[in-house]
Amino acid sequence: MALLPGPLAELMAALGTLPGVGPRTAERLALHLVQADLQRVRDLAQALVTARERVRGCERCGALTECQPCLFCADAGRDGGVLCVVERPVDVLLVEKAGGFRGRYHVLGGRLSPMDGIGPEDLNIAALEGRVGSESVREVILALPTDVEGDATSHYLAARLAGRGAVVTRLAHGLPAGTSLDFADELTLSRAIEGRHPFRE
Amino acid sequence: MALLPGPLAELMAALGTLPGVGPRTAERLALHLVQADLQRVRDLAQALVTARERVRGCERCGALTECQPCLFCADAGRDGGVLCVVERPVDVLLVEKAGGFRGRYHVLGGRLSPMDGIGPEDLNIAALEGRVGSESVREVILALPTDVEGDATSHYLAARLAGRGAVVTRLAHGLPAGTSLDFADELTLSRAIEGRHPFRE
Repeated sequence: MALLPGPLAELMAALGTLPGVGPRTAERLALHLVQADLQRVRDLAQALVTARERVRGCERCGALTECQPCLFCADAGRDGGVLCVVERPVDVLLVEKAGGFRGRYHVLGGRLSPMDGIGPEDLNIAALEGRVGSESVREVILALPTDVEGDATSHYLAARLAGRGAVVTRLAHGLPAGTSLDFADELTLSRAIEGRHPFRE
Repeated sequence: MALLPGPLAELMAALGTLPGVGPRTAERLALHLVQADLQRVRDLAQALVTARERVRGCERCGALTECQPCLFCADAGRDGGVLCVVERPVDVLLVEKAGGFRGRYHVLGGRLSPMDGIGPEDLNIAALEGRVGSESVREVILALPTDVEGDATSHYLAARLAGRGAVVTRLAHGLPAGTSLDFADELTLSRAIEGRHPFRE
């Protein structure tokens, strides 16, 4: 005899395919949902489908958007001469939340990872080259992760974009804000020392 | 300017109301879902609504079920003279998975918690008394949590069911399987010593 009512088992299986949701979390969520308010469950189901149907990648920069091009690309007040290159659509939101950046974005859609079979042709690099040529870009800021694959991707992009008239920069490495030296790992601290700069008041 | 496309923000808000899903998990899940295969998202939404609409509590014992009464109550091969009292519908599944129990269940729907304003009248206790009287129950097994509130609920139920002709038992306390004494806390170990029994080979 099957222990679980069929629809409950199916819901657990469906939830278990989400990233970071293991069997126990899926069970907990499913048991909550079958006992939750019916209208709220319907609203959640509707929100899922609506978001999936209406949110897409911007055809120009790859940021998540409802309209084409996205609000960042369409905003004439932003400086189209500066492109910030990020790995994932969500990174656009992180840079925006940090504030202070008023250029445009370009989402790579991943990073080079030979182990996983991800090469340059799998990333949104050709379009980046095209934009650097056609949108009179003065500066390309590489805002990729600072792990091995992110660094490799940054180096590859810097080499590939060289000689196209745009300065290629990357984010500063150093101490995170609001921390003491105790909490910085050795690599972070050595990079912070390498990157030291004149004291400005 | 709103950073997030509207439907994405709404999906995050809806996911964030689930238990154990904080803002960052909701963001991660929502970003995954808007980029996932459309048919899979539709299937998940459908599974949500189907499970919520078709799975209910058994009118007799409170276990989750598609049919009334549930498969446990309807199974003539089970011993109706032994009732296992649990806190939540999911606990029925846990006891079943453990195997070896062939009686029926009764779900309280919570435990006594004066701090949260949960008294005896908020739990499924009157129905339990009724069943003990009408179903010629010989034994009531209290399978409640072993924390303060679970223990208080067990004591309350034992007092209330006294003199109704059924033996009231509770689960054994002691060492968990597959562990060494190192990992048992003091209360568990002292209860295991209290509950020692003759060695059987």
